[in-house]
Amino acid sequence: MTGLEALAGRPAVVLLSGGLDSATCLALASRAGARLVALTIDYNQRHARELEAAVRLAARYRVERHVVLPLNLRAFGGSALTDDLAVPKEGVGPGIPVTYVPARNTVFLAVALALAEASGASDLVIGVNALDYSGYPDCRPAFLEAFEALASVATRAGVEGVRFRVHAPLLHLTKAGIVRAAAEAGLDMGCTWSCYDPTPDGRHCGRCDSCRLRKKGFAEAGRPDPTDYAA
Amino acid sequence: MTGLEALAGRPAVVLLSGGLDSATCLALASRAGARLVALTIDYNQRHARELEAAVRLAARYRVERHVVLPLNLRAFGGSALTDDLAVPKEGVGPGIPVTYVPARNTVFLAVALALAEASGASDLVIGVNALDYSGYPDCRPAFLEAFEALASVATRAGVEGVRFRVHAPLLHLTKAGIVRAAAEAGLDMGCTWSCYDPTPDGRHCGRCDSCRLRKKGFAEAGRPDPTDYAA
Repeated sequence: MTGLEALAGRPAVVLLSGGLDSATCLALASRAGARLVALTIDYNQRHARELEAAVRLAARYRVERHVVLPLNLRAFGGSALTDDLAVPKEGVGPGIPVTYVPARNTVFLAVALALAEASGASDLVIGVNALDYSGYPDCRPAFLEAFEALASVATRAGVEGVRFRVHAPLLHLTKAGIVRAAAEAGLDMGCTWSCYDPTPDGRHCGRCDSCRLRKKGFAEAGRPDPTDYAA
Repeated sequence: MTGLEALAGRPAVVLLSGGLDSATCLALASRAGARLVALTIDYNQRHARELEAAVRLAARYRVERHVVLPLNLRAFGGSALTDDLAVPKEGVGPGIPVTYVPARNTVFLAVALALAEASGASDLVIGVNALDYSGYPDCRPAFLEAFEALASVATRAGVEGVRFRVHAPLLHLTKAGIVRAAAEAGLDMGCTWSCYDPTPDGRHCGRCDSCRLRKKGFAEAGRPDPTDYAA
């Protein structure tokens, strides 16, 4: 059960970074029969490889529309993903990680809401996960509920009675569970990108938080890992 | 009373479009003694004149930082301000105007929240107004309250106990009241830009909704209007 069955025949805006989680969301929404609108936000992250993956995935899933929106959160500072801070390589620690980007999912969902309203859609799909990313405040159910409440008062459609829904089909899955869901949905996971800090020759570093979680997910799911890791 | 007194000595992110309302907010926050961070979102609106006004105002108020962020909401469609739909010239009608930009203030506040968190600020100032713009869903108190609730669960600072505040000092003012507040705060209103549809020689058209409200505001406030209108 992904909770996406209600999307059959309906337009849905899927936030698609090109990572494993968002690609799994796209595959699940596609299997549910949604009319796919993909939104990729190019926030000047270091890993343009992820952006390339998003473009490939959107084409493969024949989305009705793919918007790649440049939005330079780097201009603000405050994160190892957009600043020149070192990406941590020593494993996942407690607390809020330095790779947290200030208010990132708030910005992403806000932009997705704008695209949804302009597209006549009232369903947003986002690959947030409350387990592996427990340190990110904007990956928690309370955040998603607050955003749904906001969307209903923030939009013309909301005022006219449309109920916006934020679907987070991966919210309570482990990374292993995500790998299993992706495999069952037929996603070619080799097409996805996770690494925060690719090697100069364009491979997953194998050591950043995101690579560690990815590796662990495949291992615990007992699935072959198609990723080319440098370490 | 603007409710901005609490900003004395504190950093505050002011959304600054270059229009009369946001410029008034900047002047009020400045007078309250806030440490000013200005955020201008360049959403490919037709009126680049407004953007020029924002740059002038930020310089004049010696803001600590002015971020002009390109964010092309035009890519989404759905508004006369960003599409090629005709801007209405026949006066302010009932309902939600066609100049409404889908989820605009949600996107703007989300980006302001990201900048605030990256800047160590927990105060956002936005020039929304519930009277003259009663047709815009995202200019209502319910919207601002929902956004404050979201901000507290969406951010690292929020989780750590910081309470984000959205200040909307113009919320319950008429346009005439805004003109009076701006005059009392010493704002040079000739430096601001309101027109949705400037003439080719760079003047306010005098006929769009925004020009009509501006004219009416000065007239009702009994203040001289420094604006160069074409009609």
